[in-house]
Amino acid sequence: MTQNSSIKVGFVGLNCANTLAIKTHCQAILQVSSFFEISAIYNDNIQESLDIIDRLSLQDAVAYPSLKQLVSNSGIDMIVFTSNGEQLYDKIMSILDNIREEKNQIKYLLFEWSLNFSLTQTEFLANQTIELGIQTIISLQSRKSPYIIRAKELIEDGSIGNINSIEVAGNGNWFGYERLQKSPQFLYEMDARRDLVSYCFGHTIDALEYITGSYFSTINSMIFNNIPEQVLVDDMGNSLGKKVQKNVPDHLLFQGKLIKGNVPVSCSFKGGKPTKKFTKNLVIDIHGTKGDLKIEGDAGFIEISNLVLYHSGIKVNINADIQDPPPEGQVIYNTDDEVLEFFHYRNYNALVGNMAKLYQSIADFNDQKNGKFHDASLLPISQKPKADELILIQGLQMDGFPTLLDALALYRLVENVYKSNAVGSTLNVSNINQYP
Amino acid sequence: MTQNSSIKVGFVGLNCANTLAIKTHCQAILQVSSFFEISAIYNDNIQESLDIIDRLSLQDAVAYPSLKQLVSNSGIDMIVFTSNGEQLYDKIMSILDNIREEKNQIKYLLFEWSLNFSLTQTEFLANQTIELGIQTIISLQSRKSPYIIRAKELIEDGSIGNINSIEVAGNGNWFGYERLQKSPQFLYEMDARRDLVSYCFGHTIDALEYITGSYFSTINSMIFNNIPEQVLVDDMGNSLGKKVQKNVPDHLLFQGKLIKGNVPVSCSFKGGKPTKKFTKNLVIDIHGTKGDLKIEGDAGFIEISNLVLYHSGIKVNINADIQDPPPEGQVIYNTDDEVLEFFHYRNYNALVGNMAKLYQSIADFNDQKNGKFHDASLLPISQKPKADELILIQGLQMDGFPTLLDALALYRLVENVYKSNAVGSTLNVSNINQYP
Repeated sequence: MTQNSSIKVGFVGLNCANTLAIKTHCQAILQVSSFFEISAIYNDNIQESLDIIDRLSLQDAVAYPSLKQLVSNSGIDMIVFTSNGEQLYDKIMSILDNIREEKNQIKYLLFEWSLNFSLTQTEFLANQTIELGIQTIISLQSRKSPYIIRAKELIEDGSIGNINSIEVAGNGNWFGYERLQKSPQFLYEMDARRDLVSYCFGHTIDALEYITGSYFSTINSMIFNNIPEQVLVDDMGNSLGKKVQKNVPDHLLFQGKLIKGNVPVSCSFKGGKPTKKFTKNLVIDIHGTKGDLKIEGDAGFIEISNLVLYHSGIKVNINADIQDPPPEGQVIYNTDDEVLEFFHYRNYNALVGNMAKLYQSIADFNDQKNGKFHDASLLPISQKPKADELILIQGLQMDGFPTLLDALALYRLVENVYKSNAVGSTLNVSNINQYP
Repeated sequence: MTQNSSIKVGFVGLNCANTLAIKTHCQAILQVSSFFEISAIYNDNIQESLDIIDRLSLQDAVAYPSLKQLVSNSGIDMIVFTSNGEQLYDKIMSILDNIREEKNQIKYLLFEWSLNFSLTQTEFLANQTIELGIQTIISLQSRKSPYIIRAKELIEDGSIGNINSIEVAGNGNWFGYERLQKSPQFLYEMDARRDLVSYCFGHTIDALEYITGSYFSTINSMIFNNIPEQVLVDDMGNSLGKKVQKNVPDHLLFQGKLIKGNVPVSCSFKGGKPTKKFTKNLVIDIHGTKGDLKIEGDAGFIEISNLVLYHSGIKVNINADIQDPPPEGQVIYNTDDEVLEFFHYRNYNALVGNMAKLYQSIADFNDQKNGKFHDASLLPISQKPKADELILIQGLQMDGFPTLLDALALYRLVENVYKSNAVGSTLNVSNINQYP
């Protein structure tokens, strides 16, 4: 495969300060480098773009002085938005305007969860991209985690019978008693929507819906800010003798019923130093009529944590014998009827791996759409995917990847979580997953 | 101590069919037999009284043909109500009328949790007993469990710092997919109030409030009946090929905030066969700023299950070194500052033990009140405890034993749990613990 056949990626907001984007997107692209090429970078300050190109030795990437030039002159197929800037939405809109005017070759827009603009803006954006025939992708990358996919398969094939209850407990240590001095400020600003509810809970509950194949019908929540001040600490965790105010939540209680099977789900998400000695910082217990699944992680960030998946239940899929369990899974007990097994890839780097699998699924989709792979920049505009060729919404299906409409469904759930707490009510959310 | 100095106990509703009462109350009294003597039995059918006297060889017990005679002629100090009959409240009222008229020697009335009469009736009953100067006791016997008391001590002395979150998950298998053919019918009748919410959750949440020293300020609940039919099974768990309808709940989701520290509490109680392979059927996780407690049990009935208590935290009480951990507890790790330990009495029979400790605390109270122990029947009526000598309410203090006013507080919580589910609201319950 020649370099020309790669999907050319332009980044908005990739810079040396954005360490998470470097660790996830850039490393992920490196893992699937035969399909992607980082071609263009935009930051409000062009020096930041030059610095990151230099630091990561992105020899094929060009730093653009304006968004307009990024869109018009770079020949990119895909824009990845890794900015958390307040002006992000305006930037996206100006890019859409350019695309509309120029009918250029941009086919993919990738947004990070969580979105730091409003629900209404998200709806508008989703509609605009569909009208323009642009494929959106949202980085709900835990849907690509091999553990989450395996859990989904086990449930779909009946390996634990019918689900009858679920308990989730997670720990997001950004929002506890201590704050790393170098933590980005946006984590502590509600408008940025990188808080415990939007971000930690959002990723996890999306993964849970994906695993179970069901959205929620009914929810209730209580949100706490019991830690109004955090102690500033250095990289080694040593106190710097200063306290800073915290206005974002440090605890979420959530409970609800899944639409499918009316399954009770109990969920507790806390900020705070992960001192837990007797339980992991992320635990998802899924109980069924014929067995159980347990998912454990060392950190309450399901999308970037390496996990362990335990399965106790019945053996349903005989063919699974041949390929499963995966290389590092282990079957502890196995009769004709029963199986007790766990799955764990000791060296799996979830931070990079899940994102790389998300990018891989974009490449697969691109291949499929184009029959064989073309240099997208050479395609006449008529060959750009039309709306009916887009993945409008992944929903809770295995195939494809999550889109802006999936993000919209999750965003509405998060908004209802805030609302339930504010108005003190149990809410019906059966209809929030419908488009538009 | 002579036989005369024992507290003479009369039972209402103790018979051969009431196996739980035999296993708990009778065995408990046997364990503290120097302080108690079973002297009288009443059942609507006197033959049942004669049968149980015969079966248990209760040589000092007399079967009374009427409640009036039980009260007037037996010389008993204490009545224990182990009946689940529908007429229980009327019987209690008739007994109170007798006591009022005769000013006899009855000083103690012991009721079983949960109460199968209404909240209003409970309030009335509590007021009546206080006016009459009669000491009530409620069998919330988990408050006497050595594990619960140890957990309460560890929290009170700061061994896990300040509590910042709690998760509870329990399994009550009466209310699942199968029903033992010999199960008493009242378990499946809402009016009997032996359901998952009143009974299983009630006992557990009372223990949790007791451990933490705090009632709830805010609660929300969702109640499910996802298993409308149960398969009848024999003692060995074999299906009898028949299904019976079930109208009582099989799942409760509960979440709330403790008054003290605004602590988030997440709670999931399920019916169903305890198939869980990766978690115990009862798990209480209490997380603090300096450590954690975990309580585990094999069955979701905290008041009758043998438990294991794990503690990770700091060493606060230096004196505790001498006597603690208890004989079968084990310290795994212990520096000047930190300790990792667990408590488990391998041969502790919680079913009997907790109840025996409840009876013991009544005997202690009786001793204390009477200076030294008198034959209560010889005391002039003026020496009977007055209202101001009663334990009106134990509250969440270590001393004493729970009374009808403690039951009232818990009953109000349970009623609010039902109400929250019915009206779909988060409820303020800050004031339900006030008397009257």
